[in-house]
Amino acid sequence: MEKPIRDRTRKAAQGRAARAKPLRARSGSRRTAPARKEAPAVGGAAAADDTVITALELEAAPLSPAMAAYFEKCREKLGFVPNVLKAYAFDMPKLEAFVAMYNDLMLAPSGLSKLEREMIAVAVSSHNRCYYCLVAHGAAVRQLSGDPVLGELMAMNYRAAKVTRRQRSMLDFAVKLTAEPWQVEEADRETLRKAKFSDRDIWDIAAVAGFFNMTNRVASATDMRPNRVYHGQARTPATERS
Amino acid sequence: MEKPIRDRTRKAAQGRAARAKPLRARSGSRRTAPARKEAPAVGGAAAADDTVITALELEAAPLSPAMAAYFEKCREKLGFVPNVLKAYAFDMPKLEAFVAMYNDLMLAPSGLSKLEREMIAVAVSSHNRCYYCLVAHGAAVRQLSGDPVLGELMAMNYRAAKVTRRQRSMLDFAVKLTAEPWQVEEADRETLRKAKFSDRDIWDIAAVAGFFNMTNRVASATDMRPNRVYHGQARTPATERS
Amino acid sequence: MEKPIRDRTRKAAQGRAARAKPLRARSGSRRTAPARKEAPAVGGAAAADDTVITALELEAAPLSPAMAAYFEKCREKLGFVPNVLKAYAFDMPKLEAFVAMYNDLMLAPSGLSKLEREMIAVAVSSHNRCYYCLVAHGAAVRQLSGDPVLGELMAMNYRAAKVTRRQRSMLDFAVKLTAEPWQVEEADRETLRKAKFSDRDIWDIAAVAGFFNMTNRVASATDMRPNRVYHGQARTPATERS
Amino acid sequence: MEKPIRDRTRKAAQGRAARAKPLRARSGSRRTAPARKEAPAVGGAAAADDTVITALELEAAPLSPAMAAYFEKCREKLGFVPNVLKAYAFDMPKLEAFVAMYNDLMLAPSGLSKLEREMIAVAVSSHNRCYYCLVAHGAAVRQLSGDPVLGELMAMNYRAAKVTRRQRSMLDFAVKLTAEPWQVEEADRETLRKAKFSDRDIWDIAAVAGFFNMTNRVASATDMRPNRVYHGQARTPATERS
Amino acid sequence: MEKPIRDRTRKAAQGRAARAKPLRARSGSRRTAPARKEAPAVGGAAAADDTVITALELEAAPLSPAMAAYFEKCREKLGFVPNVLKAYAFDMPKLEAFVAMYNDLMLAPSGLSKLEREMIAVAVSSHNRCYYCLVAHGAAVRQLSGDPVLGELMAMNYRAAKVTRRQRSMLDFAVKLTAEPWQVEEADRETLRKAKFSDRDIWDIAAVAGFFNMTNRVASATDMRPNRVYHGQARTPATERS
Amino acid sequence: MEKPIRDRTRKAAQGRAARAKPLRARSGSRRTAPARKEAPAVGGAAAADDTVITALELEAAPLSPAMAAYFEKCREKLGFVPNVLKAYAFDMPKLEAFVAMYNDLMLAPSGLSKLEREMIAVAVSSHNRCYYCLVAHGAAVRQLSGDPVLGELMAMNYRAAKVTRRQRSMLDFAVKLTAEPWQVEEADRETLRKAKFSDRDIWDIAAVAGFFNMTNRVASATDMRPNRVYHGQARTPATERS
Repeated sequence: MEKPIRDRTRKAAQGRAARAKPLRARSGSRRTAPARKEAPAVGGAAAADDTVITALELEAAPLSPAMAAYFEKCREKLGFVPNVLKAYAFDMPKLEAFVAMYNDLMLAPSGLSKLEREMIAVAVSSHNRCYYCLVAHGAAVRQLSGDPVLGELMAMNYRAAKVTRRQRSMLDFAVKLTAEPWQVEEADRETLRKAKFSDRDIWDIAAVAGFFNMTNRVASATDMRPNRVYHGQARTPATERS
Repeated sequence: MEKPIRDRTRKAAQGRAARAKPLRARSGSRRTAPARKEAPAVGGAAAADDTVITALELEAAPLSPAMAAYFEKCREKLGFVPNVLKAYAFDMPKLEAFVAMYNDLMLAPSGLSKLEREMIAVAVSSHNRCYYCLVAHGAAVRQLSGDPVLGELMAMNYRAAKVTRRQRSMLDFAVKLTAEPWQVEEADRETLRKAKFSDRDIWDIAAVAGFFNMTNRVASATDMRPNRVYHGQARTPATERS
Repeated sequence: MEKPIRDRTRKAAQGRAARAKPLRARSGSRRTAPARKEAPAVGGAAAADDTVITALELEAAPLSPAMAAYFEKCREKLGFVPNVLKAYAFDMPKLEAFVAMYNDLMLAPSGLSKLEREMIAVAVSSHNRCYYCLVAHGAAVRQLSGDPVLGELMAMNYRAAKVTRRQRSMLDFAVKLTAEPWQVEEADRETLRKAKFSDRDIWDIAAVAGFFNMTNRVASATDMRPNRVYHGQARTPATERS
Repeated sequence: MEKPIRDRTRKAAQGRAARAKPLRARSGSRRTAPARKEAPAVGGAAAADDTVITALELEAAPLSPAMAAYFEKCREKLGFVPNVLKAYAFDMPKLEAFVAMYNDLMLAPSGLSKLEREMIAVAVSSHNRCYYCLVAHGAAVRQLSGDPVLGELMAMNYRAAKVTRRQRSMLDFAVKLTAEPWQVEEADRETLRKAKFSDRDIWDIAAVAGFFNMTNRVASATDMRPNRVYHGQARTPATERS
Repeated sequence: MEKPIRDRTRKAAQGRAARAKPLRARSGSRRTAPARKEAPAVGGAAAADDTVITALELEAAPLSPAMAAYFEKCREKLGFVPNVLKAYAFDMPKLEAFVAMYNDLMLAPSGLSKLEREMIAVAVSSHNRCYYCLVAHGAAVRQLSGDPVLGELMAMNYRAAKVTRRQRSMLDFAVKLTAEPWQVEEADRETLRKAKFSDRDIWDIAAVAGFFNMTNRVASATDMRPNRVYHGQARTPATERS
Repeated sequence: MEKPIRDRTRKAAQGRAARAKPLRARSGSRRTAPARKEAPAVGGAAAADDTVITALELEAAPLSPAMAAYFEKCREKLGFVPNVLKAYAFDMPKLEAFVAMYNDLMLAPSGLSKLEREMIAVAVSSHNRCYYCLVAHGAAVRQLSGDPVLGELMAMNYRAAKVTRRQRSMLDFAVKLTAEPWQVEEADRETLRKAKFSDRDIWDIAAVAGFFNMTNRVASATDMRPNRVYHGQARTPATERS
């Protein structure tokens, strides 16, 4: 039987890595051992799959104390370390800069709710057809909204979603900024202001949309793979959960 | 609190319908009564939601005997009648022509497996960002493959999926035919032949890709809504199901 | 002198077919004998050209009684069997499903006139640059309108045509649905309603536009060739015909 | 009955012109009198239609001696003055510059045959969906080739045409240069050189493609209308003409 | 050290030319000798660079008296002969037609100022990403406006420029006509009329936009290189020049 | 005389701000006072112009000690604080995260030279037509390369630039990742590996391209304006500077 082509390119990547004789023993690398611990909820095959996170051979660096604590916090709160963090973990300054910007944008106080920021993330990632971000942030929309359908709508075509007019204008701005940033003008900002977004909110919409235009591209360039555990998350409406 | 805009346009549609004084009593129309019976597995809110299927006010016609039998078969085998069928049910010749073509393309013997035909359906619908078809046929890919991730990959970016080279060339052809049909030439057919597709298989790839380019547009033009039950289907890997 | 490249690929196709040893004798196949009878009006070279209809080698199946009668009716009324029908004739269920859907969409009672449905067909096919459909349905627009220029305008740029505002909104909807179906929303349907199209008319516009998005792709995928006789049809204004 | 919208905008244009009180009496203007003489072959309605050539109100200037002679030559050889010339005739330096460039490009000695230059004209105009140029130069391709189908193929999708490989590479270059000139590079020129085009031929391909990218836009910007007589020209294969 | 690839393709071009044994001695050709005289202001390396103007090997023809006088006038007024003129100088009728049309469009009396015509030239060339025209006409905008930033804005994104509403509507028309000429309609002309452009001005906007759509493509097709001297021109605001 | 439209929208923005009664006195805000000190080299009008940096009214926050030191360092080394930093200065965590990521990407050790990273910045910003980034990073390319033309080439059409094959493949990857990230696959990474880029280099190319896809959008969404001083920088070849 013919082998799936992704498997073969990944096998090749592993082979290349092996030949490259990394400084640290492969058995202790990010690609095998840690995975065993990190994603136990997903089960055998899934856990194995999560051990290859990108198409690039980049040796994990020792975690800085701050990042070690952060990874530990992820395991406690989420049950796993998101693969994007492991992907950046070959270089501590890059990982730390990414984490600082991500947490500020998605979690710091803002006129946009956390759900709205995740909705922007998914609508932008849908335009860019970014597999990693659609899976990870689609799960976040399902979780934060308690509505398993909303994540799908954002990932497939946000124009079909039942959102408020205000949210719709926010998403239209974010997607226009993604598709043809050169066309964004004062009239677009005025539309947001009429929908009661402050200038500070407009910055946040732009910054979140901009950020996912960055991460979508890093993920696509490196063939980044989401943790399999995301797929099953929050598939039941909040109202029906026990 | 602001109301979702979709709700309001649908409310308006219902109002318009009421004002239009349809010949048949509204209480007996397709939009309320049948739904109660058809989708019991989904539960309260979902069932109610499934009663408005498109943005068009089209009175359901009496089912012809053949179509009544077909709907009954759907309820037996699937537990529900797919909304696309109810959407076409305002006119029996249209419903029958649709069912005949659909069943021939997706279920008749072919060099393409049923899963492969569903993969084409989803890859094409992803290019066209058709919410209805992505939900309904994404579920079919999950079901037929026993792989809950594969449906997501097809819906988000088929290029990231682990498929055989042969399947990849099939999907590339279908998506090129969707995006820029005027560019398809002998060289594209030759690529399929080199991947061991017969001329008859090439017809089937073209016909399935063409068909979903039709239904994607009918669904988008009418704001067709998938049965909510699809969302939860086949989210667990076949290997882990009891 | 250099040979045209199309000729060579078709020669290759014929060679491939010969090597494939079809079950029926080639001399009795759809590709030669029937053509001699079907398109006598076109004359020598043209008739020969009409014998190769697609780039796929698909052996014609025996016509079912219904389809034999239908082909006969085509010969009586049109003087020839449209090549698209011969292209589907390798498989009776496919041919019958296609004929049923085509005839319902283009000929059954509708709020759209037959000419309007043909105008949609040509405007959609122009967007998709489908040679087969532009030739066959461009001739239909010329014939039904008695205006030899209107068919050209639809095929080249419908925006330049002298049509009513109502027809223009119908064509704008059909072409937007063709070019970017994901952008079609309630506002687009409202524009049609304001132009006095009923919800049933909107369905028909969507269904015809959708159908030609399917056939354009089947034709492009198979390099389907129109009967040459279409080219000369209805080139004189109705008012000047004797 | 609803009036065609084109008619109304043209009526408005004529009204605007009337209000503008042009220096010369309207009855003696380009828009009525000359037309009576110039296109007698087309007959009543057509001749009337040919009297409004663009959507702009530009008073015809007195023809310079050189241009008067050139128009006379057109009438002798073609039986009519092409509308594009009348459109430029509001300003003699513009008309003369246009005529000089046109005649040099399309008629002067070149490694490209006149038919090949017309094929480029039509393939470029098809990409730009320019009604004027497709009608006028489509007729030229039919005439020069003696093949009524070739003009249609160029206008609809040149990729489907039976042309030599050399001609195909010429058309591919011209259309790429039209669609995305920023992508044209040395490799594209090398492809032409391999097809035995000299550097001088490459210039001519570029210059003809460039020229129609200009005229397509002037025609579209002004809603320029072709002489109706073009539509019927050369619709019969040369081999069948008496 | 690796050699820049442009250098290599140009070296190859020179090699090809040498092998082709042109009729005139290479040392006397346009490619070396004249450059020494024509662009002294730029200095050594730059002057050498200006000796290869396009990727095509086209032997300069003897200048006609009119063109010799014109080149002389360029040297007097500009200090150099623009490379586009040298590129056309392999054939006098082509050069003369180009010069006649260029001078009429850009320098003859018009309702558009010379600066406005240059602004159209640059906005169009920016859409087409034409290196030659952006450099040469960007310098013209800087020069005519006395505003070194305005040329950059036009070349980078005219939508960000501080221009009058009237100029903005002119540029929007020109760029729409460049990007999707098939969409230009009466409503677009009406927008210009509302901004107080006469029908004659509309012609001029269309003609200038059309012209640069031609020259952009000739320049891209031939890899035409601007004189280096343009780069430094008018980089200081007029108000600050001594 | 008609006022430029940009001025008016900015005036409106200032009016809005005034009405909004910010907590801090306007006279002490970022928008006037600091500018006087920061960009003395540019002169009167320019300095005034630099006081309005974005279309959003966001009150500058007090600089954190780290950021105050960083701004001071900018003034020392560059002579001014880049406007992008002032634009982020309404919120210290955002400014610090931006600075950390920017400095790591553009200045930390990498297999890509600083010039190469700036070339990616400009090629990406050119695709996105981002005025701010083209001006600021175009100047950086001119400065780091000592070649005033190279910055223009990157900003106008990098495909026309004289770069090494290796650099060209780097830029092609970055621009493909910008234009259609969903199409980037293993074959694209392999092309980079063949050009002797390590997997770590590939990460850096992706990360720099991704970063400017973010900042381009933040700049376009907020109409960010570059310091005028950039325009005149490094316009003379390094070899000719005294």
